[in-house]
Amino acid sequence: LESGDPVAAGERVADLHPAEIAHLLESLPAADREPAWEVIRDRFHADVLSYLNDDLRAELLHRLSPEELVEAAQQLDIDDLADVLPDMPDAAIQAVLNSLDDQRRSRLDTALAYPEDSAGGLMNLDAVTVRGNITVDVVLRYLRRLGDLPDATDTLFVVSREGRYLGHLPLSELVTAEPGLTVAEVMRRDLDGIPGETPAHDVAKRFEHRDLISAPVVDTDGTLLGRITIDDVVDVIRDEGEHSFLSMAGVQDEEDMFAPVRASARRRVIWLGLNMVAAFVAARVIGLFEASLQQAVALAVLMPVVASMGGIAGNQTLALVIRGLALDQIGPGNTLKLLRKEITVGLVNGLGLSVLIAGVAWAWFGDPALGGVIALALIINLFMAAVAGTLIPLLLRRLGGDPALGGGMLLMTVTDVTGFGVFLGLATLLLL
Amino acid sequence: LESGDPVAAGERVADLHPAEIAHLLESLPAADREPAWEVIRDRFHADVLSYLNDDLRAELLHRLSPEELVEAAQQLDIDDLADVLPDMPDAAIQAVLNSLDDQRRSRLDTALAYPEDSAGGLMNLDAVTVRGNITVDVVLRYLRRLGDLPDATDTLFVVSREGRYLGHLPLSELVTAEPGLTVAEVMRRDLDGIPGETPAHDVAKRFEHRDLISAPVVDTDGTLLGRITIDDVVDVIRDEGEHSFLSMAGVQDEEDMFAPVRASARRRVIWLGLNMVAAFVAARVIGLFEASLQQAVALAVLMPVVASMGGIAGNQTLALVIRGLALDQIGPGNTLKLLRKEITVGLVNGLGLSVLIAGVAWAWFGDPALGGVIALALIINLFMAAVAGTLIPLLLRRLGGDPALGGGMLLMTVTDVTGFGVFLGLATLLLL
Repeated sequence: LESGDPVAAGERVADLHPAEIAHLLESLPAADREPAWEVIRDRFHADVLSYLNDDLRAELLHRLSPEELVEAAQQLDIDDLADVLPDMPDAAIQAVLNSLDDQRRSRLDTALAYPEDSAGGLMNLDAVTVRGNITVDVVLRYLRRLGDLPDATDTLFVVSREGRYLGHLPLSELVTAEPGLTVAEVMRRDLDGIPGETPAHDVAKRFEHRDLISAPVVDTDGTLLGRITIDDVVDVIRDEGEHSFLSMAGVQDEEDMFAPVRASARRRVIWLGLNMVAAFVAARVIGLFEASLQQAVALAVLMPVVASMGGIAGNQTLALVIRGLALDQIGPGNTLKLLRKEITVGLVNGLGLSVLIAGVAWAWFGDPALGGVIALALIINLFMAAVAGTLIPLLLRRLGGDPALGGGMLLMTVTDVTGFGVFLGLATLLLL
Repeated sequence: LESGDPVAAGERVADLHPAEIAHLLESLPAADREPAWEVIRDRFHADVLSYLNDDLRAELLHRLSPEELVEAAQQLDIDDLADVLPDMPDAAIQAVLNSLDDQRRSRLDTALAYPEDSAGGLMNLDAVTVRGNITVDVVLRYLRRLGDLPDATDTLFVVSREGRYLGHLPLSELVTAEPGLTVAEVMRRDLDGIPGETPAHDVAKRFEHRDLISAPVVDTDGTLLGRITIDDVVDVIRDEGEHSFLSMAGVQDEEDMFAPVRASARRRVIWLGLNMVAAFVAARVIGLFEASLQQAVALAVLMPVVASMGGIAGNQTLALVIRGLALDQIGPGNTLKLLRKEITVGLVNGLGLSVLIAGVAWAWFGDPALGGVIALALIINLFMAAVAGTLIPLLLRRLGGDPALGGGMLLMTVTDVTGFGVFLGLATLLLL
C-alpha cells in the first residue's frame, strides 16, 4: 500500500472502516507511519482514534494541532471523546472543552466520572428511551420520526418520568407486539440495570452468560445513564485475553508492536532486572555447594535439567490456575482440591520421567547412584512446582495484585532454587 | 450450594441460565460432580451441554442413557446438536439420528458438513428471511404472526426465490422505514454473505472490524445457509485468547480444571518429555566444558544467570510476536523491521544490565575478568533471544503450525544453549 503513490493510497484508505485504518497503522513500522499519516491526514476520520492502542493514540494526538483536535472532538461520540481526552496535550484539552456546547459538556462530565474499566467508562450515551404509558403504535411512529437508530440498538429502554430505568423493549418484541398494547404491558424486566461502577470484567461476564447485545447502565438511584453495547464488551474480552498472555511473559499489554526502542526497553527492563535478582538468588544457592561441584563436575552438567523441568511443569499449573481465576472458577470451596489434583499430576509425571532421566544420567556418567539422586530431585521439584504454580497466583490475587503479572518469574525462582538446591544437596549428602 | 440439601439446591439451579449451570459444573472438583449431577439431572436443560468445555461435555454425554440423549437432542437447536453429536457414545448417535424428522435430519447434515471452527460450523439455522418484493408493512405483519424472534435477531436476511442472499434489513431500519416501501427499496447491501468454509478466526475479525451483531452465511452459489451471531463470535475470541495463553505454557486449551489425573498427566507429559530432551541438549553443551568447570567452579555458579536472562527476554519478544500474528499485524512487509527493533531493544537492555551483572560477579568472586566475560555473554544471549523470539513463531507459522504451541520451549532451548555455551566458551578462551 505504501509503495504506490500517495494519492491512490489515500483513495484506498478512504474506503476502509476506521477500525481497519487503525489496524493498518498499528501494523506499520515506526518509520513508515509518518508518510502513512500524511496520506490519511486530509481525510482523517476521528473514529480511528478510538480504535488505536494507547501508545499509538497518544503519539497521533500529539501530532495533531489543537484546531484539528477540536474538529476531531466534534466528530466523536461523547463516550469515545471521554476515552481520548486524557491523552491529549494540555493545551488541546482546554481548547476542546471550550468548544463543547453545554449539553455535550455535561454528558462528557458524566462519562468522565467513571474509570475507563468500569461499566460507566464503557457506556455509550446514545440509548433510545421510551415511557411506559405510550402504546406500541406510538413508539413505532416515534422511531420512524427519529430516523436512524444508533448501532447495536436491539432494545429500547423504558424509563419513568424521573429517568429511572424500569425495563426494556426489544425491537424484536416491538415488531411482533399488538400495536394497541402499552409499552408497560409488553416490556421485559429480565435485564437489570448495571451500576456504573461495576468492573468491566463483571460486565463482560454478564454479557457472556446472558448473550446480551446491549444493556442499561444506572447510577445508585436507578437513573438510566447510558448503555453498554456488545462491541465494547468484545474489546474487553479481547484485552483480557491479551493481558494474561502478555503480562505472564513480562510485556505490558498496551505495548505497541513498533513502540520506540527507548520506551520498549524501559518497560521490559523492569522484568529483566527482577529476574536478575531472582537468578542471583538461585546462583547463591548453587554457590553453597561449591565444594561438591568441585568434586563432581557431573553435578554442574546435570543441575539445569532438574531446574528446567520444574519450570515447565510449574508453568503448566500456573497457566491453568490463572485461567481459572480469570473465569472466576476458583474460590475457597475448591482451592484445596485443585492443589491436591495438581500435586498428584506432578507426582505422576515426576515418577514417570524420573526413570528416564535416571537412565540417561546413569548411562552418561556411568554412576547409578547419580541417576538415583537426579530422579529423587526431579520428583521433589515437580511437587514444588505444582504447589508453587497453584499458590503463587492465589497469593498474588489475595494481595490485591494481578495473578498473571510476575507470577511466572516468582514461580521460576521457586523451581530454580528448589531444583538446584535439592539436587546439589542430595548429591552432597548421598554421593560425596 | 452442595453442602445444603439436594432439593433446595435443585430449586436454586432451576433459576439459573444454562451458561451459569455449565460454569458451576466446570468449577466443581471431580468428586463433587457426581452429586451435583444427580441434583440437576431431573430438571436438566439440554442447553447446558452446549456451554460446557469439551472434556466435561464428553463425560456427561457418557453418563446419560441413550433415551435421555434422544430427549436432549430434541430440545437442542440443530447447530448445537451438530456440536454435541460427535462426542456422544456410538449407540446414542444412532438413536438420536433415528429420532429426527426429515427436516431436522437434513439441516443437521448441512451443519455437520462444515468443520467446527469454520463459518459453517459456527452458524445457527434460525435466520429469519424475507423476499424483496413485499412491503415493509407486510413484513411487520409477518413478524407479528411469527411471534417470538430468535435471539440476537438484529436484522432480517433478504433472499431471492431460489434462496440466494441479496441483502439485509435491520430491525432498526424496519421500524423506522415508511410502511409502503418494498423490502428491496429499504434493504442494505453493506453486508456480504460469509462463505461457509471461512475460518472462525476470519469471521471474528470481520465481526470486530464492522461491529456486527449477526451476519449471513452462504454456500458457493450464494445460497443463504444460516447466520452467525455475536455470542458465538465472543466464544471464538475468548477461546483464541485462552489458546495462545495456555498453549504457550504447554497446556491444552480445552483442559478441564478438574480433569482426571490420568488425562491431565498424559497431556502434559508430552511437553515435559520434549523439554527433557531440550534440557539434555543444553546439558550436553555444558558437558563440553567439563575441564573448565573443574578449574573454575564460579562458572557453574554463574552460568544459569546468563541462560535465565536470555529466556526471560526471549519470552517477551515471543509473546509480542505471537500476539501480532494472532491479530494479523505481521507480514512480509514489516518482519525485518520488527526483527531489527527487537534486536535493538535486546542490545540496549543487554548493555545496561551487563554492567550490573559484571559488577555483582566481580564483587562476588573478586575477578574483574570474570565480570567482563559474563557481561559479554549476556549481551550475546539477549541478541540471540531477540532473534529467536522473533523468528521461531514466524517459522512455526510458515511450517503450518500454531506459533504459540511449543514456541516457548524451542526458544528456551536456544537461549539455554547459547547462554551456557557462550559463557563457558568465552570463559575457557579468555580466562583459563
